[in-house]
Amino acid sequence: MKSIDTLIEQRFSPKHFADRAVSEEQLHQLFEAARRAPSSFNEQPWRFIYATQEHPEAYQKLLSCISEHNQQWAKSAPVLMLSLAKKHFSRNEKPNRHAWHDTGTAIGFLLLKATEMDLYAHQMAGFNPEKAREVLGIPNEYDPVAMMAVGYLGEEENPNKLRKPVNEIAFTGNSHGLL
Amino acid sequence: MKSIDTLIEQRFSPKHFADRAVSEEQLHQLFEAARRAPSSFNEQPWRFIYATQEHPEAYQKLLSCISEHNQQWAKSAPVLMLSLAKKHFSRNEKPNRHAWHDTGTAIGFLLLKATEMDLYAHQMAGFNPEKAREVLGIPNEYDPVAMMAVGYLGEEENPNKLRKPVNEIAFTGNSHGLL
Repeated sequence: MKSIDTLIEQRFSPKHFADRAVSEEQLHQLFEAARRAPSSFNEQPWRFIYATQEHPEAYQKLLSCISEHNQQWAKSAPVLMLSLAKKHFSRNEKPNRHAWHDTGTAIGFLLLKATEMDLYAHQMAGFNPEKAREVLGIPNEYDPVAMMAVGYLGEEENPNKLRKPVNEIAFTGNSHGLL
Repeated sequence: MKSIDTLIEQRFSPKHFADRAVSEEQLHQLFEAARRAPSSFNEQPWRFIYATQEHPEAYQKLLSCISEHNQQWAKSAPVLMLSLAKKHFSRNEKPNRHAWHDTGTAIGFLLLKATEMDLYAHQMAGFNPEKAREVLGIPNEYDPVAMMAVGYLGEEENPNKLRKPVNEIAFTGNSHGLL
């Protein structure tokens, strides 16, 4: 069993995926993790449209929404996914200020669950939201948020991306560090 | 050691905190988890302003930004926090479409790390962002995102909030379930 620290440390966003399928059952486990995230008024604004390479037509649709640059590596992933955020609260139709934020939290849970299963995910801002809406028939109420490639690790990669130290992101009692 | 499934299952947002302090070292561990989250162009847009009850002036400032309804229970928390999102990319000053989303992912990591440490967090949308900006002197470049109360569990609570099943949040290849 891996500790949460190990999962957080191990996770990274690869550009090379192994030629190894990810099953529907495995994907179900990822969504099980995502669905337990907290959300404003328990709205659960997150949605996911996904396709495996076993469904080439659906897979190609998702792939076609990704920028050409990202397609180069993303097309090796056995699974492509699009995350969506529901823009208004279902209970009163008011705008949900935290729809994207809460979708991000659900993604955080999904990513760490994936790492536990030796799966890796790489999210992309580089895709065409309007095209996604058209190609996938996404209702106006949902924002296309991010594309994601999921699979097993392919060739070796250096995962180390520099991160800001804690004293550059957390400040006690005041905002001086932000200035 | 707790599995990721256990952490996800155990986590909930309590309304009663024990009269037990959370140390700076523990808070540092939470931010260590948050800072490793993925973000668009590795921007790391998340920031946190926090105060413990050991610093009453700073604590009261944060508390004063919370809605009266939420203050009733939040004031029992040994730590209050405000998450912030940096609105533009530092590298080119363009708007960061994923600033809130990525902040949400960092929060996801923080929440599961907290659970591993037997800490619980309760986020609040019910606060006054304009007041927070004023009271805490937050530069315009940062959006106040959510307040958070953190501490050990107080009295027993029923944590069970209903969640949508996977087949209501994840759809293979199309958006039919969204309609």
